[in-house]
Amino acid sequence: MYRFSSDYCEGAHPRILEKLIHTNDEQTAGYGEDRYCRAAAELIRQRCRSRNAAVQFIPGGTLANLTVAAACLRTYQGVLCAHTGHILTHESGAIEATGHRVIPLPSENGKITAGQIQEALNAYRNDPVREHLVQPKLVYISQSTEVGTVYSLQELEDISAVCRQNGLYLYIDGARLGYALAASDVTLADLARLADIFLIGGTKIGALFGEALVIPNPALQEDFRTIVRQRGGLMAKGRLMGLQFLALFEDGLYFDIAEHANKMAQVIRRACVDAGFGFLSDSPTNQQFPILPNALVSRLSRDFDFSLWQDMGDGTHAVRFCTSWATTFSAVESLAEAIRNGA
Amino acid sequence: MYRFSSDYCEGAHPRILEKLIHTNDEQTAGYGEDRYCRAAAELIRQRCRSRNAAVQFIPGGTLANLTVAAACLRTYQGVLCAHTGHILTHESGAIEATGHRVIPLPSENGKITAGQIQEALNAYRNDPVREHLVQPKLVYISQSTEVGTVYSLQELEDISAVCRQNGLYLYIDGARLGYALAASDVTLADLARLADIFLIGGTKIGALFGEALVIPNPALQEDFRTIVRQRGGLMAKGRLMGLQFLALFEDGLYFDIAEHANKMAQVIRRACVDAGFGFLSDSPTNQQFPILPNALVSRLSRDFDFSLWQDMGDGTHAVRFCTSWATTFSAVESLAEAIRNGA
Amino acid sequence: MYRFSSDYCEGAHPRILEKLIHTNDEQTAGYGEDRYCRAAAELIRQRCRSRNAAVQFIPGGTLANLTVAAACLRTYQGVLCAHTGHILTHESGAIEATGHRVIPLPSENGKITAGQIQEALNAYRNDPVREHLVQPKLVYISQSTEVGTVYSLQELEDISAVCRQNGLYLYIDGARLGYALAASDVTLADLARLADIFLIGGTKIGALFGEALVIPNPALQEDFRTIVRQRGGLMAKGRLMGLQFLALFEDGLYFDIAEHANKMAQVIRRACVDAGFGFLSDSPTNQQFPILPNALVSRLSRDFDFSLWQDMGDGTHAVRFCTSWATTFSAVESLAEAIRNGA
Amino acid sequence: MYRFSSDYCEGAHPRILEKLIHTNDEQTAGYGEDRYCRAAAELIRQRCRSRNAAVQFIPGGTLANLTVAAACLRTYQGVLCAHTGHILTHESGAIEATGHRVIPLPSENGKITAGQIQEALNAYRNDPVREHLVQPKLVYISQSTEVGTVYSLQELEDISAVCRQNGLYLYIDGARLGYALAASDVTLADLARLADIFLIGGTKIGALFGEALVIPNPALQEDFRTIVRQRGGLMAKGRLMGLQFLALFEDGLYFDIAEHANKMAQVIRRACVDAGFGFLSDSPTNQQFPILPNALVSRLSRDFDFSLWQDMGDGTHAVRFCTSWATTFSAVESLAEAIRNGA
Repeated sequence: MYRFSSDYCEGAHPRILEKLIHTNDEQTAGYGEDRYCRAAAELIRQRCRSRNAAVQFIPGGTLANLTVAAACLRTYQGVLCAHTGHILTHESGAIEATGHRVIPLPSENGKITAGQIQEALNAYRNDPVREHLVQPKLVYISQSTEVGTVYSLQELEDISAVCRQNGLYLYIDGARLGYALAASDVTLADLARLADIFLIGGTKIGALFGEALVIPNPALQEDFRTIVRQRGGLMAKGRLMGLQFLALFEDGLYFDIAEHANKMAQVIRRACVDAGFGFLSDSPTNQQFPILPNALVSRLSRDFDFSLWQDMGDGTHAVRFCTSWATTFSAVESLAEAIRNGA
Repeated sequence: MYRFSSDYCEGAHPRILEKLIHTNDEQTAGYGEDRYCRAAAELIRQRCRSRNAAVQFIPGGTLANLTVAAACLRTYQGVLCAHTGHILTHESGAIEATGHRVIPLPSENGKITAGQIQEALNAYRNDPVREHLVQPKLVYISQSTEVGTVYSLQELEDISAVCRQNGLYLYIDGARLGYALAASDVTLADLARLADIFLIGGTKIGALFGEALVIPNPALQEDFRTIVRQRGGLMAKGRLMGLQFLALFEDGLYFDIAEHANKMAQVIRRACVDAGFGFLSDSPTNQQFPILPNALVSRLSRDFDFSLWQDMGDGTHAVRFCTSWATTFSAVESLAEAIRNGA
Repeated sequence: MYRFSSDYCEGAHPRILEKLIHTNDEQTAGYGEDRYCRAAAELIRQRCRSRNAAVQFIPGGTLANLTVAAACLRTYQGVLCAHTGHILTHESGAIEATGHRVIPLPSENGKITAGQIQEALNAYRNDPVREHLVQPKLVYISQSTEVGTVYSLQELEDISAVCRQNGLYLYIDGARLGYALAASDVTLADLARLADIFLIGGTKIGALFGEALVIPNPALQEDFRTIVRQRGGLMAKGRLMGLQFLALFEDGLYFDIAEHANKMAQVIRRACVDAGFGFLSDSPTNQQFPILPNALVSRLSRDFDFSLWQDMGDGTHAVRFCTSWATTFSAVESLAEAIRNGA
Repeated sequence: MYRFSSDYCEGAHPRILEKLIHTNDEQTAGYGEDRYCRAAAELIRQRCRSRNAAVQFIPGGTLANLTVAAACLRTYQGVLCAHTGHILTHESGAIEATGHRVIPLPSENGKITAGQIQEALNAYRNDPVREHLVQPKLVYISQSTEVGTVYSLQELEDISAVCRQNGLYLYIDGARLGYALAASDVTLADLARLADIFLIGGTKIGALFGEALVIPNPALQEDFRTIVRQRGGLMAKGRLMGLQFLALFEDGLYFDIAEHANKMAQVIRRACVDAGFGFLSDSPTNQQFPILPNALVSRLSRDFDFSLWQDMGDGTHAVRFCTSWATTFSAVESLAEAIRNGA
């Protein structure tokens, strides 16, 4: 049984593990105040061409998202996001438990547009009883999205412009950022220029665990570590995250992993196209969502683990196949063959 | 510069690291629903002689503490703890951000007594306007405490009895539990019998990261994973914590580490006693709090890193020396000698 | 300029005011622990035929709603309601600030159905990753609804049955309950039998201010006053609400007011029907939502104050006319005439 | 049985009630957007000599306090107050439910000093791990205090100066402000000059209900009404509060009431002094806290209702006698005589 169910089925990329092994006996300060965290933060700043960005490591994505909400929002402000946004669909109400509403916008392909954001804002501003409403203040987008799609540079420029013109914060959840960077014209420097705060995911791109929050907007940097502490995200052995991000960024490993996984995903994609199957979304990244006949889904389930994403109601299912740093060519070839045979 | 500043200066105990290395390429389900987490939970249940306890792994201590508060308390209920309790002193208001008051009780040696708890409850109950008060509902104690001391079995029996007679929940924060177990007559089975929920710390006792919440009280088990998810504590690669706790508990490594660190701490303790210095607390565990002349403190600071705990105001400081799985005999001997020479 | 903009344009019904004047110099205990609050609560229990219901007075509706959420929900649980529900649309995120998600269900005529609730629950329960979701626990419905419609007894029976079969709490927000009671086959005793907790609105039905929360479900009664205190709803001169509810319920004034206002609203309704205008909703209560040509809306605005509810986009607007205890026949006749003339 | 148990035993001062009666049939806009609220706010601004202060009416004190906390604080910030402060002792954890810690300072006579605030701040700032602490940001003081005492102008100047030098907000809870103004050299204009936000209490000084929050600091004015709405404090018939504050401030009624009640309290005070009894606090306002022998307390209880404040443990009790707008000379004389006889 080979697992295509997620990009967190395996441990860490060997080069990351090596780094942890090598430094294991070394003594450092705790809570991320060590030289590895400092070096990793500096490296990320360089890659982002953002000299003054703050960089904060956080053990997981939900924790990062709720910490961002706590840092960005006053009590009556809410978060705009796609109706497929992770904070709305799969975090058990983490943002609401932090006191804030998540306001979904209907979404095509997992993405929202600058126009939709402007419209939501206009609706708020033009409402004669807006004092009785939740005020939109933070825009949450995922790159790559929950259905594998990617915002183009132009789309991000537009969203950022709308946010800045209207005093909104833009947060980009990059739990799977690497895959998007490898599949698009957007660079880390673009993100640092366009977002107020964004996440460079580690867990789903080869790390054991850990995400890096990059905060280019100085207004959001003040006392950020205290908020992280309060929400439980400051790790005693914080250096572990610094070390992993060093490994990911010092020789381009982050991009190599992403490129590999995207390529493996394209093998699956091509098999589905060849077999005449459609897709839920047009994904250039490591998540593929083909729509397969239920009989084929059953057959594939014997040899492969993957997610049933959506019952299309017509005898087919959209499913998710996910690749990672560890996915082998032989594994995707077996799956591709099984798909082609099943058509 | 040798660090005695904490028990999280180094990485993981080699046997824990080995386990991670060995299983790194294996594929498993995410979010702690893998066989390693199941096996580790089962092992912990056995060690606790508590067949029906739930076991939930959480990446860090503050996150564990606030999750426990969220799970145990209704909106108007608060937590009783020693005025030195970690949730009061060093978690940036994590419990309050979860909506609940921390109610400090004056404490000797980092501990509170059954009598104090009963008294606080009586004060609440006998107050004619108790409807305007915060209701004490959860008792938080640390084992070992923030100043290294240890509750005896009798003390725990008494506290547990008071809690049960009065419908309070008892939570034992065992971020440094191993050191307490190794230094006292209390067993894991005792804790499972006496507490409603307790923490077996990993981070500070040899793991890379990770704590195990043990929940013997079935009333607290319902939907606990959802609360963990909501607060950001459910790790995608959850198996990492299962693996580490397997390593810690399958051959008694947890106790070996604790015993070693306690022994190393005793070497430091003896040197202080020999040199005629007093202590802030009477600690049999891996944290020692001698009261040293400021001049000696300065001298020691050249070669050793440790914490200034409290300015005693009379030309002396209480300092903290902390040992870990990695502390070597030669290191403590150097420190001991420096202390003896400084007397 | 006559105001049909709401049912809270005037002060209190004279008989309520009289009661306050009569008792003004009397001394009583504070915080609702006086004989008037006790008598009013007892009277409400009688009218509800619910011997053991708790009755708690609260100064306003939003405060009542958020207090109910705080009392009913554990941290990861949310509220199901119509997408037009007041807690979603006009309370500035009060429920989210209390830590809980409001989960909207698409609604016809301001109402949701037992079937929709069951479906939402099934979707939650059948989701393989339901541990990552918000758990539906409380159902919020308004009677009468935000668009003036009324749940029939059968609809309420069905909703209540679904809630009980599934362990959900049912909360009925009766900010405008009287108008619904006067226009339907549903009685207070039905509500007390079918709901876990419900609100008998005062502010919008003749009181100066004040709502009565009735809590038939004993599980929700424990320490309820403390929660009210915590959220700021326990008034020092609590007797004022007891007195007002005494006035409302001792001689059927509550029903007389509602009947009067409903009758006045029907005059407006008939004028619209006669003039050939349609309605946004089919309301038998004191709020009417006719759809009028923009030109007529402009003309009416010169002499009457009312709410623009929705731009229909075709040269018409749905507007809201609202009547109250104080609405005179001559006022509604003037409006009716203006409408008929404008057709 | 005459009640000296509080200043909210009776209804409203007749002139306030008259105002409500007179305007009862009038139609106005809701939610405080009417001419009476505007006029009352303007009057208060004049009395405060603060042209740009915002004025917001709120139905009760606890609601006002928690709304202020929500408006002033970021997630990791806390409130400094006297250990006798109302928000700590009698609001069921309202501030913590809003997400913030209340940090008590030991207090003499219900008051804290500028020095204590500076000290608390220094302790925070000089703590090497201050990132793990709650950051003090808001200072809460009561005027008059919970034990009847009053801050002098100099004390307020000093506290305000410390707050401004250190970027803290100063909030003055004036639930009983009138009594303090009548008994000291402090004016409303002083408060508006020295505080960032303060409360002019109505409920306990002759109103049926209602408090006025005055917000001189423009940084705290933004979207304040939305926060009030979210917390449940925006009343539909908001004009009721505007009307009452008009009555209180247009002819100096607020000060007349306070002066009367203070004078009545002095009669009680003198009787205690004459009889040789001591006091818990040195109160020039409407609350008196004499320390009486238990036998006398019992005897007085037959004819008078008052609060047992503190068992002194030596056969005496500190009790509280409270006077109001309605307290008659004959009532205080009876009490005074009973006290003198009991000596």
